[in-house]
Parts: sequence; C-alpha cells; structure tokens
Amino acid sequence: MKLSNIITLTTDFGESDYYVGTMKAVILNISPRVKLVDISHHVPPGDINHTAFILKSAVPFFPEGSIHIAVVDPGVGTKRRPILVQAKNHLLVGPDNGIFSDFIDPNSRIYHLDKKKYFLENISQTFHARDIFAPVAAHLLAGKNPSQLGKRISDPVMLDRPQPVLEKGMIKGQVIHIDRFGNLVTNIPGNIIPKNPVVKIAGYRITGLASSYMGHKKAKPIAIIGSANLLEVSIPQGSAAKRLKARTGQKVIITKI
Amino acid sequence: MKLSNIITLTTDFGESDYYVGTMKAVILNISPRVKLVDISHHVPPGDINHTAFILKSAVPFFPEGSIHIAVVDPGVGTKRRPILVQAKNHLLVGPDNGIFSDFIDPNSRIYHLDKKKYFLENISQTFHARDIFAPVAAHLLAGKNPSQLGKRISDPVMLDRPQPVLEKGMIKGQVIHIDRFGNLVTNIPGNIIPKNPVVKIAGYRITGLASSYMGHKKAKPIAIIGSANLLEVSIPQGSAAKRLKARTGQKVIITKI
Amino acid sequence: MKLSNIITLTTDFGESDYYVGTMKAVILNISPRVKLVDISHHVPPGDINHTAFILKSAVPFFPEGSIHIAVVDPGVGTKRRPILVQAKNHLLVGPDNGIFSDFIDPNSRIYHLDKKKYFLENISQTFHARDIFAPVAAHLLAGKNPSQLGKRISDPVMLDRPQPVLEKGMIKGQVIHIDRFGNLVTNIPGNIIPKNPVVKIAGYRITGLASSYMGHKKAKPIAIIGSANLLEVSIPQGSAAKRLKARTGQKVIITKI
Repeated sequence: MKLSNIITLTTDFGESDYYVGTMKAVILNISPRVKLVDISHHVPPGDINHTAFILKSAVPFFPEGSIHIAVVDPGVGTKRRPILVQAKNHLLVGPDNGIFSDFIDPNSRIYHLDKKKYFLENISQTFHARDIFAPVAAHLLAGKNPSQLGKRISDPVMLDRPQPVLEKGMIKGQVIHIDRFGNLVTNIPGNIIPKNPVVKIAGYRITGLASSYMGHKKAKPIAIIGSANLLEVSIPQGSAAKRLKARTGQKVIITKI
Repeated sequence: MKLSNIITLTTDFGESDYYVGTMKAVILNISPRVKLVDISHHVPPGDINHTAFILKSAVPFFPEGSIHIAVVDPGVGTKRRPILVQAKNHLLVGPDNGIFSDFIDPNSRIYHLDKKKYFLENISQTFHARDIFAPVAAHLLAGKNPSQLGKRISDPVMLDRPQPVLEKGMIKGQVIHIDRFGNLVTNIPGNIIPKNPVVKIAGYRITGLASSYMGHKKAKPIAIIGSANLLEVSIPQGSAAKRLKARTGQKVIITKI
Repeated sequence: MKLSNIITLTTDFGESDYYVGTMKAVILNISPRVKLVDISHHVPPGDINHTAFILKSAVPFFPEGSIHIAVVDPGVGTKRRPILVQAKNHLLVGPDNGIFSDFIDPNSRIYHLDKKKYFLENISQTFHARDIFAPVAAHLLAGKNPSQLGKRISDPVMLDRPQPVLEKGMIKGQVIHIDRFGNLVTNIPGNIIPKNPVVKIAGYRITGLASSYMGHKKAKPIAIIGSANLLEVSIPQGSAAKRLKARTGQKVIITKI
C-alpha cells in the first residue's frame, strides 16, 4: 500500500489538556513530514459506538494509504490489545475494543502491536495514545511494515450493532448517532425507505420525506435522508434530540402512508 | 491571482462529528499539497452575522491568494446558490446567504458554482460542504479558474447590517458580536469616539476609555477599543454578556462628558 | 539551536472567534513554510497555572528547536513585558506572567521583546497575540536570532507553586490540575509514593494504587499514577472533580497502610 503522508486523529481527549498536542509532538519527532488531520477530539468520553460511526463516515473520503489513529480507550492499562487494522486501503491504529468494526472483514489484516521497540521508552498506565499508538503510527509512516510492528491475529473485538428489521410491511430501526445540531441519525439506509413513508418516533408521526431543513414549521420534526445515506429526524433550526428527548437506542418505525 | 496554497475553513459544524474531518479528506484527495487552516468550527449554529464578522476580521490577515471556505448554511438543500467571491486578493467559497457581504463591492467578482463535474459524484441533501464547497475549493487550488467553475452573477444576497448613527451629539450603536470571554463588541469604530466618552449600555454608565483589562474594579464594566478597532464593553476577569444580560442587538449610546 | 519548523499555539481564546485563525494568518504571512500545531485553545480564561502545567507536560515531547507561543494574558495592554525564553532546546514566546516558569533555570536565556519592527504595524490594546507574539515567533522561525528581537533580562515573573511536604510519615500535597475527564492531578510525583499507600482526599479514603481505570466499582474513587508521573484521583467512567466536588488546591494526604 502506498502511503499518503496523512495521519488522522480521533479521540475523546477534548482540547483543554496537553493530550492531543503531545500525541502530535511524538508523531512529529519520528516522522517530521507527516500531514496531521484532526477528525474529532470531542467524542463523548468512552463512547465506542460514536467513535465507530465517525470513523466509518470519515475514513473512506481520505486519500488511500492514510493512517488513522483512534483512541477512545476506557480499557487503557488493562490487557486489551493495541492493534493495527489494514483494510480497504487504509491503516487504523488503536485499542482492540470494537471501534474499528466497520473496517474488519475477511479481506482485512489485523496485527497485535507487541513490538516494544516502536513504543516510547516509558509506558504510562493511562496514556497509550502518546506512548504506543502515536509512535507506532509514526513508524508506519516512516516506512515500517505492519508485520514488523506486531503479529497477525484473527479474533478482534467486534461491536454488535442493531440492524433494522423488516416485519409485516414495517421497518423497525433505531437512533444510532446524535450530531452537534441534535439531528437523530438512525440505522435505516435511504434505499430501503418506501416512497411516501410515515415515520413514527417518540410519540411523533412524520409524513413524507423532506429535501432540506428550510420551509418547515419550526417546532415540527421532519424526516430526511442525511449525508451518511441514513434516515435522520431533525427539527429545523432546533435540536430534535432535545425536543423529542431522544437518545441513541430510541426506536423508530417506518410504514407506508 | 497567485494562490498561497492555503485553504481556510469556517463552519458551525462543531468538532464532535465527522463533518469537518470529511471536508478536509475531500480537499486532500484533490489537492494533496494544500495547507489547511481552521478559522472556527464553533460559529453558533446558523448564525450568519457571526460568520460574516469572523471572516471580515480574519481573512485580511491571511496571505494574498488564500481560499476561504465558509459553510454556515441553514438553506442547504434549497435553491440557495453555491457561490465563489473573488475580492481583495482573496477567494471565498460558500452559500449565497450574506456571509460574504463584507467582501462584495463593485470590484469583486461573484460566480454561481454550477459546474457539477467539480462536485463529488453523489450530492447529499444536507452536506454540501463535503459534496460541493470542499471539492470546488480544492479544484480552484489545483489550478482551475473561477470562470471554469461557474458563471458570473451580480445579485448576491447581502446582509443589511445596522450602522452607528450620529444624532444630536450622540453616537447610537449596538452590540454586533459577543466573543468567548463575554466581551460585547459594538458597531462603533474607534476613530469616531470622542476623547472622554460616556458609554451607556443596559442601565450602566461608563466614563472614559480603558487601555487594558487590568487595574479596574472587578464587577464594573469598562469600555475599550478592541482588536477589530471597534468599541467593546468588558468586565475585567468576567463576562460582560452575563453581567449585563446583553445579546447582539443591545443598544449602546455614547455622549461626551 | 537548529529550528524544527514547528510553531505551537497555546491560548485561552476558544475556537468560536477569529482570534486563533488570525494568529495563524499573521504567522503564515511571515513564514509560509511553518508547521502549525495547536496544543490547546481551551485553557480556562486567564488561568496561568493551567497554562504552565500544559506547557510543562507537552513541550518536552516536541522536536528540539520548536517554537511555542503561549498567550494566556490577563495583563494585555499593561506594562507586563512580552518575552522570549530559550531553554532546554525550545523557544517560548508570550507574556511575562509566570506561564513559562518551568522552563526558566540558570541555563535559560530570557529576552524582553522590545523591537517594534518585528511587530505588526498597528498594535491593538487587547490582542498582542496577533500583533506581537505571532509576528515575533514567525520572524524567529524565518531566521532572526533571539538577540535581534529583544534584550536579555534576568528578572522574569515566576509562579510560586505549592510543593508536596513530607511530614511525620505523611505526604501532604494538593490538586494542581483537573483534566477534561474530571481526573484530579496532584503535585505528588509517583516515585515518592510508598508501596501500599492510603490516599485521603475530600472525606474519601482510597487504599492502594490502581493500574487502570477498569475493573473497579463505578462510584468509588481510585488512585493511580498518571501520564505526567503524578498521583491522580479518578472515578472510573465518571468525573472525580464532580463526585468529590474538588477544585485545584484541594488537599491530599498520603500515609502507609
């Protein structure tokens, strides 16, 4: 795989501490010509599903041969393995806790990162992003092969995600992601939604699909196919999450008119 | 115009989602040598005036020939036009909703971005930042001319912003921007303020201008000429917005002592 | 000192305004080949101790010869001096208010930045980050020597930080930093902590040291040596700051079992 020179970062570290800056420092020390791109440092603390969703949505748009470090890692300091996933022309580095589930299939290769000579010299108990993941990704960019960084494994932790169900002419799904605007992103892909759907959620009944956020009554929720090609429920100029008091896991049912 | 290799980004997308990272991914795919600079991704959602103020304050400091993508776009998915503004040695790309008002004058050129071959292949209804603005800006940087990306127009949407009024020896203005510290930035430029002004705002009466935030009583508001050369009302080590319960639009009156 | 081409930024400016973007613009104008790295822009407003802690923790990991601008500057516009600190193979630029205390020792050199020809032409009263610190750092990267930018001084402002005290078999320390997860970072280094410590804080009594955040009762605080090699008190999957209602300055006592 030809590398793109890009390393992206996705964490739940926020930006008020030294954590993200120090990861970048470690990478720049090993691989000075890297192009660093932040995807997000504001994943809700410890939220593995949110991380997986962000990676699935962003990674495929990056140039092939990019390296993606993702560290949402409540198990840091335990026996959970540091891994590298090589899949679909991308390289992903982070903890083995399911965040890379969408990139793992029979064609992907997974490595347990166990070569300590590519870590920092002193490994802390709580900050493997700095001590393990950043230096390993930088060595990868600097020319090391995945097989030099660890040994192949075949039993990664996989997330068990809810799939939408088709039953008696209904589609039963759920909210899997809530974005900054309070849009409720469901697990129902656009292509299985009937032409004139009725969407039922949290006591609301929405008829038809909108084609934009404008031109609707402000207080009423709308249904729209969003940018990840999934059904979203939104409140124009407001937050559907707040109005509908919805969280991830909220049930959604689609029927025809 | 000689380009600087810089593309800046200004949005209301926040940083907890995949939105900003994906815009950067699209740009890097088309124009790998770009230098990406974030101006802000924390514009209050849909706040067009805030966006215009940020662009006016930041853009002129960038090297000439920089490209600036700004996407605060409540009308995404409607017929509002995607545009490119070429003005004052800068190129601005985003929706035609007034955010570029300060860069539009008889010398600027405005293009309606309607050449779909420079968009991503699949255009979503809700994420034109990724599907239209990012790829068009990247093609611009990669060497396309504005005239290849769309046709000239002369009727852009312009913001109607309140100007300060001089009346009976008084200057009547208003708060147009509130910053992260709670400083109240008004529309009154420093050069029209008399030497010993009295500033009246929200029931407070401030005498004279301060030259720094220090050395004042903590609870009392001060008036100071800020970094955008506009009158600001501040609370040293506190938030004037909170203390004065002020929002944008708050009236301010200046008289002489 | 050979420079690394990196300029880092640490401020309390947040990211909803034009402040950070404009600093970068000024730097790019003077030194277009710079590699800009954000450490943090979310220092609590005016918090000099927080800034010093971040710099101490992050700077040593950067390549030697990096330049670090830090602007947490409640005294902007007063007579407080703009300074440059050359220490431990790093260059630090910012206000003389104690934020660089950890980099000042008999081997460091400190310069009062008083050469106006390296500032922007118009100096505002409130935004020296843009008008003084950014251009001076960029001129440094572009090849100027520290001695061209100002004259040596030997009386920088130093922070008076609390040190842990050993007394009657007890270690008495305090919380000096609270991170985004609500972890309470103390001033007690890992190497002086006895093998089976009892940690007393805010009415809680913690026995022994944890080696990770996992496998503990959720509601109970744990003690752990954190990534800065300091004792931290944490709530697994929760915020110790909230649970213990602790702030910086909170007393901590360590005894042996």
